[in-house]
Amino acid sequence: MFWSKIFLPTLKDTPQDAEVISHQLMLRAGMIRKVASGIYTWLPLGLRVLRKVENIVREEMNASGAQEVLMPMVQPKELWEETKRWKKMGPELLRIQDRHERDFCLGPTHEEVITDLIRNNVKSYKELPLNLYQIQTKFRDEVRPRYGVMRGREFLMKDSYSFDLNEESLQKSYMKMRDTYKNIISRVGLEFKIVKADSGAIGGDASEEFHVLAENGEDTIAVSNGSEFAINTELLLKKGEDLNSLEGKPSPDGKGVIQIKKGIEVGHIFQLGRVYSDAMGSNVLNHEGKKENLLMGCYGIGVSRLVAAAIEQNNDKNGIIWPESIAPYEVNIVAIGFDKDEKITKAALSLYEDFLSMGYEVILDDRKDGYGTKMKDAELIGIPMNVIIGKNYIEKKEIELKHRDGQSSIGTLEDIKTIFEHFKNK
Amino acid sequence: MFWSKIFLPTLKDTPQDAEVISHQLMLRAGMIRKVASGIYTWLPLGLRVLRKVENIVREEMNASGAQEVLMPMVQPKELWEETKRWKKMGPELLRIQDRHERDFCLGPTHEEVITDLIRNNVKSYKELPLNLYQIQTKFRDEVRPRYGVMRGREFLMKDSYSFDLNEESLQKSYMKMRDTYKNIISRVGLEFKIVKADSGAIGGDASEEFHVLAENGEDTIAVSNGSEFAINTELLLKKGEDLNSLEGKPSPDGKGVIQIKKGIEVGHIFQLGRVYSDAMGSNVLNHEGKKENLLMGCYGIGVSRLVAAAIEQNNDKNGIIWPESIAPYEVNIVAIGFDKDEKITKAALSLYEDFLSMGYEVILDDRKDGYGTKMKDAELIGIPMNVIIGKNYIEKKEIELKHRDGQSSIGTLEDIKTIFEHFKNK
Repeated sequence: MFWSKIFLPTLKDTPQDAEVISHQLMLRAGMIRKVASGIYTWLPLGLRVLRKVENIVREEMNASGAQEVLMPMVQPKELWEETKRWKKMGPELLRIQDRHERDFCLGPTHEEVITDLIRNNVKSYKELPLNLYQIQTKFRDEVRPRYGVMRGREFLMKDSYSFDLNEESLQKSYMKMRDTYKNIISRVGLEFKIVKADSGAIGGDASEEFHVLAENGEDTIAVSNGSEFAINTELLLKKGEDLNSLEGKPSPDGKGVIQIKKGIEVGHIFQLGRVYSDAMGSNVLNHEGKKENLLMGCYGIGVSRLVAAAIEQNNDKNGIIWPESIAPYEVNIVAIGFDKDEKITKAALSLYEDFLSMGYEVILDDRKDGYGTKMKDAELIGIPMNVIIGKNYIEKKEIELKHRDGQSSIGTLEDIKTIFEHFKNK
Repeated sequence: MFWSKIFLPTLKDTPQDAEVISHQLMLRAGMIRKVASGIYTWLPLGLRVLRKVENIVREEMNASGAQEVLMPMVQPKELWEETKRWKKMGPELLRIQDRHERDFCLGPTHEEVITDLIRNNVKSYKELPLNLYQIQTKFRDEVRPRYGVMRGREFLMKDSYSFDLNEESLQKSYMKMRDTYKNIISRVGLEFKIVKADSGAIGGDASEEFHVLAENGEDTIAVSNGSEFAINTELLLKKGEDLNSLEGKPSPDGKGVIQIKKGIEVGHIFQLGRVYSDAMGSNVLNHEGKKENLLMGCYGIGVSRLVAAAIEQNNDKNGIIWPESIAPYEVNIVAIGFDKDEKITKAALSLYEDFLSMGYEVILDDRKDGYGTKMKDAELIGIPMNVIIGKNYIEKKEIELKHRDGQSSIGTLEDIKTIFEHFKNK
C-alpha cells in the first residue's frame, strides 16, 4: 500500500474528550471515529488490526474443535421471557419494537438464542459435546460509555457456548476454552492474568475473567507475586474484605504475597450449569433413552476491546507500539528524496516489491512531507519496522532499519533483505 | 472435517412455511434456522458458504482500490434529519430510543454516516478519488419478510461509497464498481443481467441493478435476446408502458427482440451526484482553493442474498448444486464399510489426508448410516465431488468419482489423486 492512497486521517493534537491513552491514540492514528456516544466507525487502519485479532480468535477457536455460527443481533422478547431476563436485565438491554409492535432487543449476549437453537436441533447425547461460537456485533446500552471502544455500546465480540451431558465433560469443555483463551491472548502478545470472578447477570456456578494488565484498567485485581493466584477485588468486597489490609498479605495458596494491580477485562468464561437449559427445556436423550437437561458453559472475549487493551499495554509518548501479530502493517519504507532523486525512488520501489514478494505487509510513504513528519506518523501508528533510504544509500549503499521499540541498525540492501527473509522463514 | 463432528441438522421433509426452493433447501441442508420473522441464525454449513461469498466480494473490492471500513449498525437520528430521510423513510427504517431517550435507527444503508465521516476528515481534492466499503449487518423492517434470507430483515450486505470532484471522475468510479460487480457475480458462478433501474429511496441521477436470473425471482425484467439491453419492468410501468405489448418487440438498441425474464436483484449501483453532499455540506477545497461539494456514488451487493440466489439458479429435485467457488466443502468421501472393513477404513482415512494436503476442503462421512442415506445427504447439501470407496476397492482397486451434476467415473486411487492434483494446480 502507498501511504498517499490509504484513507488515514492522523491528528496532531490529542482530542479533548478522550480520557485514556488507547482512545487518544486510536483517534490520533486514524483508526476510529466517533458516530455517537459509545458508537464508532472503524477506519481502514483500525479495521486491519481488528481483523487480525478476529483471525487469531477464529483460528484458535477452530483449533479447539468449536464450530462457527452467526446469530442475529435483533432477538425476540419471547426467548428472553422464558429465562425471565426480559424483566431482570436493566436498561443496558436495549428494547425495541418493530413496525407490527412486536418486542425485540438488541443482543448483548446470546444464551437465549443458542439454547433455543440447541433444544430444537439436538436430540441425542451422541451429538455431544458441542461448542458453537460466533464473532458478532453486540449492543449494550451502557449508562456512561467511555474510553472509546474499550467500553463502547456497539462492539465486536466472540461468544461461544458449550453443551455437555455430565459434569466431567463440562469441566473438559471449560478447561479447553480456558486454554484457548490463554493461547489467544498470548498470540496477540499481551501480558495477562486469569482472575476468579463474580458471575453477575449471566448467572451460573463458577467463572473466571481474563485481564490484560494496564495502568488504566477499570478493574482492580489482587494477584500473588509467587503464583498464578488472582482474584477480582469486587468479589473480595462482596465478601466484606478490607482491601487495604491485603497489601503485602500472604497469598491464600501459600505462595508469594498479594499485590494490587489494574486490569482490563478482555475475556470471561462461565460454567452455567443448567440455569438456561432448565429455564428453556433444552434436553437430549441420555444413554438410557431418558430426557436430561444439558449442562452449559459460556465464553466471551472482546475482540474490539482487545485492540484497545493492546494499545494500553504497548505505547510510549510518540504513539502505539504494536505487537507484531496485530500490527496493521509490518514494514514501513521511508525514502528521503522520494520522487526527487531517481536512484532513491527506484531503490524504494524495488524494496517495496521485494517485501511484498517475501509476503510482508508493507506500506511505502510516498507523501510529499519531510522525513520528520513521516517518522512522527510512523511512530504514531506504530509500525514495527521502518526501513529508511537516504543519501547514505547513494554514497555508501547503506540503508537504516529502525525498530519501533527504539533499536536501529545499518546495512546494505542485501543485508536488509536477508534479515527479513530470515524472519519470514521463522 | 468428519461428518459426525459437524453440527449439521439436515431435514428429510420440506418445512411447510418455506415457499421458494432456496429457502426450503437452506433449511433442509442445515444452513440456517429461523429465530423470528425475517431473522435467521446461520449454522456452520451455511456460514461457510456465506464467508466464501464475502471473501470473493472483499477480494474484488480490494482489487478495485476500494478500502474497507466498518460503520455502526446503530445510527443517530441527527444525521438522518440532515438529509430529511428520518421523516421521508417509511417504517422499514426501524427507529429506536436509548436509555436516555435519544433517537437512533438500525441502519438499512449508510449514506448519512459515510457523508458525515468524509466531511469531517477529507479536506482537499488531493485526497480524492476515494471509495470506502464495508461488509456489514443491515436491518430493514420489511412489512412482509419472506423467502428466508432472500428478503429477510437482518442481512449481510456489502455497501460502498465513492467520492469524486467532477463528473468524469464519478463516471470512472461508477464504471469501476460496475466492472467489479460483474467480476464478483461471475466468480460466484452465476448467470446475471445488468438492468436499468429506478433510484427509489436512495435518490440520485442514474442507477443499474444486477439481477441473477431465476424462475422464482421477485422482479420482472425485459431483456434483449440479441444484446446486453435489459430494463426493470417497474421502470417501464412508471412510464406507462403496457408490458403485454413488449413481448417479441424489437429491442430499443436495434439488436434482437425483447423477452420477459424473472430476476433476483443482488446488486444495485447508483450515481448519487450531490444529493447527500449538498444536504450535509460535504465539501473539499478544489484546485483553486474554493470549497466544492462532492459527487457521490453508492454501490450495494447483497452477500446473504447471493447465497440464496445461487441456490435458486443451481438445484435439482435432490438438493443444492453448488458452484465450486462457494461450495461449503469441495470433496465428500463416502466409504462403504467404514469402521467395519479395516482396508476400506484405512484407504478412506488416507485419502482424506491426501485431499487435505492437496489443499482441498474435504469432509469424510464417518456416520453409521448406510450408503443411500449418505448419498442423499451429500446431494442435499450439494458437495461438488463425491469420492466413493467400496468393495470394488478391495477386489479391483477401483474408486468411483461422482460429480454432483451427475457425471461419474471409475479409477484407481492414483488416478483419482492425479485428477484432483491437476484441478488444484489449474
